[in-house]
Amino acid sequence: MSIRIGIMGYGNLGRGVECAVRHNPDMELVAVFTRRDPKTVNILTEGAKILPADQAPAMKDEIDVMILCGGSATDLPVQTPALAEYFNVVDSFDTHARIPEHYKNVDEAAKKSGHIGIISVGWDPGMFSLNRMYAGAILTNGKDYTFWGKGVSQGHSDAIRRIKGVKDGKQYTIPVQEALDAVRRGENPELSTRQKHTRECFVVPEEGADLARIEQEIKTMPNYFDEYDTTVHFITEEELKRDHSGIPHGGFVIRSGKTGWNDENSHVIEYSLKLDSNPEFTSSVIVCYARAAFRMQKEGQTGCRTVFDVAPACLSALSGEELRKHML
Amino acid sequence: MSIRIGIMGYGNLGRGVECAVRHNPDMELVAVFTRRDPKTVNILTEGAKILPADQAPAMKDEIDVMILCGGSATDLPVQTPALAEYFNVVDSFDTHARIPEHYKNVDEAAKKSGHIGIISVGWDPGMFSLNRMYAGAILTNGKDYTFWGKGVSQGHSDAIRRIKGVKDGKQYTIPVQEALDAVRRGENPELSTRQKHTRECFVVPEEGADLARIEQEIKTMPNYFDEYDTTVHFITEEELKRDHSGIPHGGFVIRSGKTGWNDENSHVIEYSLKLDSNPEFTSSVIVCYARAAFRMQKEGQTGCRTVFDVAPACLSALSGEELRKHML
Repeated sequence: MSIRIGIMGYGNLGRGVECAVRHNPDMELVAVFTRRDPKTVNILTEGAKILPADQAPAMKDEIDVMILCGGSATDLPVQTPALAEYFNVVDSFDTHARIPEHYKNVDEAAKKSGHIGIISVGWDPGMFSLNRMYAGAILTNGKDYTFWGKGVSQGHSDAIRRIKGVKDGKQYTIPVQEALDAVRRGENPELSTRQKHTRECFVVPEEGADLARIEQEIKTMPNYFDEYDTTVHFITEEELKRDHSGIPHGGFVIRSGKTGWNDENSHVIEYSLKLDSNPEFTSSVIVCYARAAFRMQKEGQTGCRTVFDVAPACLSALSGEELRKHML
Repeated sequence: MSIRIGIMGYGNLGRGVECAVRHNPDMELVAVFTRRDPKTVNILTEGAKILPADQAPAMKDEIDVMILCGGSATDLPVQTPALAEYFNVVDSFDTHARIPEHYKNVDEAAKKSGHIGIISVGWDPGMFSLNRMYAGAILTNGKDYTFWGKGVSQGHSDAIRRIKGVKDGKQYTIPVQEALDAVRRGENPELSTRQKHTRECFVVPEEGADLARIEQEIKTMPNYFDEYDTTVHFITEEELKRDHSGIPHGGFVIRSGKTGWNDENSHVIEYSLKLDSNPEFTSSVIVCYARAAFRMQKEGQTGCRTVFDVAPACLSALSGEELRKHML
């Protein structure tokens, strides 16, 4: 029996989930839900339905896990608890400051309806969080570092595009190699924001725009760029399309710490990702947690979970016996 | 209330566990058990007892988790199930082929007595297994690579020391940089044993020994060296002591895989360890799983577990709320 999946929202992430379901033979995509006119949405999976978002509750007996692919700012805080009334749900909520509140809302809804909701799934939050946690538990006397990139930051790209005279743009976050190297050597450096990452922008200006003013506005933009060393390149629309249409990302979680009776020995734990497609990788993680949500509810569990609460074996299509035999 | 720890066997690993307990304020070392004459054993922890191994059962009400620090060949297959009758137990059993059998024996004993037994804990098996499993679940269409080193292999060092004319010796396992680089580039290479690792030996010969014969015997030793490119250095006893008395190790678990509707995007997940002390790092992992064993039994669970079955949050001294707030 397949795990029957629904997708709420069909942007980059929704399409990524669709691809990930195809890579997991124990799952089947039943329907994609959208707030757009379903007639205007083309999906890839033969046989799956495209339905208006508000028809989701009517599909409650045909879908085991609903995967929420909306944004963290306004969609997920409302949708995840609301849909937990009808389905097991998984989302990639990533507004760190609001996680405790979101957890509480999903927990209440999921307990009431007898479902499992797993929130903040992906790679950060998600696999990076897990690695921070495992490494922190093992090396109690140590220090954590997270570096992001090289990759596209959607938030920073959006910020560039809001500047007057900018037609289009893309921003890459890049870890500083010297900082990475120092951390890997176990030196436990104190690093400022500027010492950890640089920012590189590729900007398509409107015709006749004041390039010097645009560059200045970018480099001094509070919160987004002012604390970083930023490089700005002006390019044509064709160059942007040709060289910068991908959504790569990645990063590094490193913890170095000491063991021994007098802390005489050093250790470095490093986890890194190099991703051609940020949304497709995020989706691949989410789909594993959809399997876990399905299994945990079948066992009689209910309520909200995060990656910290899910036993690793729950994610795998392999049985416990197979895992012990081939993976341990 | 502290988690009360017992250590069975006081070699490098037992001493490492003692140091790790010191780094975890929610734990306390109650006793070390040894098959040697307790009067000849010196431990570091003030107030902890040193007792004969056969007196362990009598301490069943004073110890929450017994950590087994014996060898996988003959100690653990007997000790872990036997002590699961009296305690929650954690071991680092690493004979891969015998894991299913060991799991079954510990499971039966632990279920009967109402305890939790967690087996095969450390870094490989252990953290490396976890990373193979997580990465394999996420990138279903991909390929796994494990590299070990640079580090000391006790088994290979022992093999050298059994050769006639060898007084002492140490063997390092070293990953081949070109192989690592090809894997990291996502090339999914097919790699022979020889292409993945080299072996470097530091040998102290007895006076007048035939060095050419020793070198030849090492390089052609079946199973241990014959499938590798091996370098042999002859050094003095003083040099061995000065330059090679540590027990460093480490390695890399890398999975590269494809996502997208037509597998058009590549991803690389890498986990690596660089360890000054193999036994102290292994011990630091074991101690986290001792915390988990204690908690899982308190929740009413019984039986055998591996790292695959333990929810990450169980390992951490932080509460679920703290983890969500600071680590997610």
